[in-house]
Amino acid sequence: MKTIKTKKNIMIAKSIGFCYGVRRAIELAEESSKGGKVNTLGPLIHNPSEIKRLEKKGITKVDSLDDVKDSVLIRAHGVPDSIIRRAEKMKLNIIDATCPNVKKLQKIVKGLEKEGYFLVIVGEKDHPEVKGIMSYVENFQIIDDLDEIKKLDFHEKIGVVFQTTQNHEKLEKIVPLIRKKCNELKIKDTICPATTHRQKAAKDVAKKSDLMIVIGGFNSGNTKRLVQICSKIVNTKHVETDKQLKGSWFKGKENIGIAAGASTPDYVIKKIVERIGNFDD
Amino acid sequence: MKTIKTKKNIMIAKSIGFCYGVRRAIELAEESSKGGKVNTLGPLIHNPSEIKRLEKKGITKVDSLDDVKDSVLIRAHGVPDSIIRRAEKMKLNIIDATCPNVKKLQKIVKGLEKEGYFLVIVGEKDHPEVKGIMSYVENFQIIDDLDEIKKLDFHEKIGVVFQTTQNHEKLEKIVPLIRKKCNELKIKDTICPATTHRQKAAKDVAKKSDLMIVIGGFNSGNTKRLVQICSKIVNTKHVETDKQLKGSWFKGKENIGIAAGASTPDYVIKKIVERIGNFDD
Repeated sequence: MKTIKTKKNIMIAKSIGFCYGVRRAIELAEESSKGGKVNTLGPLIHNPSEIKRLEKKGITKVDSLDDVKDSVLIRAHGVPDSIIRRAEKMKLNIIDATCPNVKKLQKIVKGLEKEGYFLVIVGEKDHPEVKGIMSYVENFQIIDDLDEIKKLDFHEKIGVVFQTTQNHEKLEKIVPLIRKKCNELKIKDTICPATTHRQKAAKDVAKKSDLMIVIGGFNSGNTKRLVQICSKIVNTKHVETDKQLKGSWFKGKENIGIAAGASTPDYVIKKIVERIGNFDD
Repeated sequence: MKTIKTKKNIMIAKSIGFCYGVRRAIELAEESSKGGKVNTLGPLIHNPSEIKRLEKKGITKVDSLDDVKDSVLIRAHGVPDSIIRRAEKMKLNIIDATCPNVKKLQKIVKGLEKEGYFLVIVGEKDHPEVKGIMSYVENFQIIDDLDEIKKLDFHEKIGVVFQTTQNHEKLEKIVPLIRKKCNELKIKDTICPATTHRQKAAKDVAKKSDLMIVIGGFNSGNTKRLVQICSKIVNTKHVETDKQLKGSWFKGKENIGIAAGASTPDYVIKKIVERIGNFDD
């Protein structure tokens, strides 16, 4: 944890800035944009500031393969299998920026189905990573809320995987509930190590703070989880950019904690820290 | 549940008498004793009354393969793999009365080790079934008490199995604790269905009783578990035969519940029920 003494005591979580998967996706995008315009199917990562910066370099988002000119960049969250196959048929140049941890998860679900497991995917139903994963299997159920386990039928063999940015606390709560729904249970802890470290670091800072500022895209799943985790400990605000900060939040608050999602650029964090330091009490 | 109205209200658990594995072992023993004397390595089942009855038919227990004359009968709980191999080398006639559920479990642990799992066997360290199972694997830890999980190291992959006569409540408690000790967890619910039904039936009766009598060998694991389960609900006594019943237990008790382990013969249960019915208040 780094502490910056301004008018406020600003404590920055130990694990902050781009994760490996996001950094790799951006590097691949920048590298491939040197050869001409590049299209991504949906946003490359879940951070509007960074997406805007990349747009200026000719890396633009399209909504359908039909709109792709030559090269299609697969977003960090991965895409459904059918998209890759269609892009191959269309003979597009495919640049795969799928996070290696997500790629591994896609392979894992395929393997589990082959071994005869009914798949339980713990994650957000509408998140692109989850949509990608579910495309690799036929017999599955997505569970986001613990309550949804009630609707889960009994299966002889159940295999459980987790969206790579899920929360470990949720994992531990879900396991004993799913246990009763089968005779054989296989649990793969597919939450990526970076997510775990980031969540732990955010928690450590939140415990010492009077107010937590979590920085990241409003569409970013891992940022939302950081907000949920910190909210249980202390008053927490989620912002995408410094423009959303409100002076009133900081009145009478001495210790301000900072955490950020895996796709939050350092320059966004820096700007926010500077602005907080300048707020009057 | 069968209710017998005597001076007492005697309620007998729905699931009582020999389980399939015990009945099969006794039938195999009786059948093979027709061809001459038969030796078992250790007691065939864990019920002294039944063992005595079988002795009269020439089915006798020995402690070592060296004492076996021609035929060796493998007990219902199974034996370590090395014993079978030694008996084969000695060219003994092997009659395998291992319970099919135990046999299946022996295969399961072998398979899990082959798949790279570190084995956790939940069961009684000194029980012959557990000793048999552990002989099939090299990398394992036996866990009987939940506290022992503290001593369990972290392993990439852990496979968990259960002595076939374990308690489901314990299974459910252990799973979330072992979860944290690995990245991949495979749980095989190897508790046999007969055990589960018997435990549930005993529980149902215990809830309606003022006193529970659990009948079965003092060396019988599944009977001990019935005693543990019923003790949490009502005052419970464990007896092997009618001779151990004490009139004082029944003073002022109207509703008497009866449950019995999987190796308790019907004639032992019958005698006990008759004796209880004759106790004065």
